Amino acid sequence: MPTAQPAGPSPELIFETLNAYQRSAALRAAIELDLFQAIGEGPGDVASLARQCRASGRGIRTLCDYLTILGLLAKEDGRYRHTPTSATFLDPRSPACIASMARFLGDPGMTAAYGRLAEIVRKGGTVLPGQGSVEPENPIWVEFAHGMAPMMAPLAGPLAAVVLEGLAGPLRALDIAAGHGLFGIEVARQNPEARITALDWAPVLEVARANARKAGVDDRYDLLPGSAFDVEYGGPYDIVLLTNFLHHFDPPTCTGLLSKVHAALTPGGRAATLEFVPNEDRISPPIAAAFSLTMLASTAAGDAYTFRELESMYRAAGFDGITAHPISNSSHTVVLGRASV
Amino acid sequence: MPTAQPAGPSPELIFETLNAYQRSAALRAAIELDLFQAIGEGPGDVASLARQCRASGRGIRTLCDYLTILGLLAKEDGRYRHTPTSATFLDPRSPACIASMARFLGDPGMTAAYGRLAEIVRKGGTVLPGQGSVEPENPIWVEFAHGMAPMMAPLAGPLAAVVLEGLAGPLRALDIAAGHGLFGIEVARQNPEARITALDWAPVLEVARANARKAGVDDRYDLLPGSAFDVEYGGPYDIVLLTNFLHHFDPPTCTGLLSKVHAALTPGGRAATLEFVPNEDRISPPIAAAFSLTMLASTAAGDAYTFRELESMYRAAGFDGITAHPISNSSHTVVLGRASV
Repeated sequence: MPTAQPAGPSPELIFETLNAYQRSAALRAAIELDLFQAIGEGPGDVASLARQCRASGRGIRTLCDYLTILGLLAKEDGRYRHTPTSATFLDPRSPACIASMARFLGDPGMTAAYGRLAEIVRKGGTVLPGQGSVEPENPIWVEFAHGMAPMMAPLAGPLAAVVLEGLAGPLRALDIAAGHGLFGIEVARQNPEARITALDWAPVLEVARANARKAGVDDRYDLLPGSAFDVEYGGPYDIVLLTNFLHHFDPPTCTGLLSKVHAALTPGGRAATLEFVPNEDRISPPIAAAFSLTMLASTAAGDAYTFRELESMYRAAGFDGITAHPISNSSHTVVLGRASV
Repeated sequence: MPTAQPAGPSPELIFETLNAYQRSAALRAAIELDLFQAIGEGPGDVASLARQCRASGRGIRTLCDYLTILGLLAKEDGRYRHTPTSATFLDPRSPACIASMARFLGDPGMTAAYGRLAEIVRKGGTVLPGQGSVEPENPIWVEFAHGMAPMMAPLAGPLAAVVLEGLAGPLRALDIAAGHGLFGIEVARQNPEARITALDWAPVLEVARANARKAGVDDRYDLLPGSAFDVEYGGPYDIVLLTNFLHHFDPPTCTGLLSKVHAALTPGGRAATLEFVPNEDRISPPIAAAFSLTMLASTAAGDAYTFRELESMYRAAGFDGITAHPISNSSHTVVLGRASV
């Protein structure tokens, strides 16, 4: 079902696309049933799995076959076992498990909008109330902070390395829309003299604070509750992180925010965004480019911006030396700008 | 997004699977907006498409980019055009257009069940009321008869050729669960002395009757309204067609029905099922094997049966000489049995 694209006309591609929603449902159901834990514990035959998951044999066999077709399980001699992907990222016993993101990505408030996608395309923006997903205090962001942290964790190291390159000694960093806080926390880990200010809505900051404590950096971790558009940033900061944030807004709003960031930076200070950045063709790479649809469906005017678009926002806000740093083995890119001196 | 399966662990595969529901939504929205007709009419730039579809530029650009990632459109120099697949199967001006199946495959009564898939796996069958999709007089089958006919039409010729091979002269055929009627109608077209009896619920038979009239075979086309399990078949028949039907029921029910079919056949008469028939591994080919999940979610005890399972039902009902005939360029297989003499 990861099928190669056929050269000729393919009714199968259409049939599979119309049924693709079943893939999401199958993976969500398997996570809910603790199936990937049961697979990891073995022995992987239908009867054992049904017992472990307290489910029917018919249901387990059908679900496991379907997940095997998707490449999320393997099957041999009637037994199911992990693929490298499911062992690493779906078995809760793995430290890299990202199964928790099923909750955020499957949040009914977000997914329901897709039932009205034609209307959204007509209108040119979300049909969710107000500003959509970025409506103030939307509880979805607490879910994001919890659920998406494992998916974001591997990006924190590379992001912090890019941001800190050539910087040593005491510094101050502002982490805007901190969420789980992992990015600012990693800056604090890589530089023991860094002091972090985490900005987000108050309920979300509770998640970040707990993560900072777990990482042992809470003595250098300050909280700044509120909206990135409204609160005074304080400062000046040597570094500002703006991760997974700009894509929610239109270019003028992004430029305005980047100007506010610029004003809070020391001369030569660095602003780093972490984003899905599609190529200028807007159709590659697939995951980054496809993210535009998520922004269409869930925001009033957001987008997955190309590097050229981000560069032009940065410039308009007073930055220069703007560079793109794709993170390897991921679909994310760090875009770095320096506050003009 | 038709992505190759990576060798190593891939968080992207999990992210894409959890978001796969957006693919179905995007294709449905494009069909609803008449986008594929607009693409065919040209010139394919965002402004023209937005005007033709009465939609926003932002929405159209994002949707077209997303469909391009899926392989359902092509993009060059900022203009969108058809792929071979969309030209043939999604542009309403094409005689092979199958866009109508979006309605049946996207029927909210069917798709909603997938929101409760974990519960369905626990239970081992649908959570839809009663018998699920095959609850008597379920209006979904009128939708099927209308919407799925274009997808089924290319299968009718090969099916009729298999069923009629070596038969000439006057014969009678019973088309059980006739739906759109296309299979029985094609038998009547290939054999001008064939007389067809179409069996289905009365509202569905109206669709079949209209199609028979269009094909000019209505003078040899009789209607038998009711349930395949309850009505007297009459006969004897030389041929019985059982297309897209057995997968809704458990093996004993299928065997019982095949016995009733056997009793209505002349000695040596032929019963032909048309099904998604997965290989014995149940994980290939992908479309046929994945159909088991649809049957789990929408029926009390149905399945996509392997040839060995179908063969054993046929045998138990008194058939022999049971053979499989995969239809080329499709995911369907004809299984033929002969009533023992």
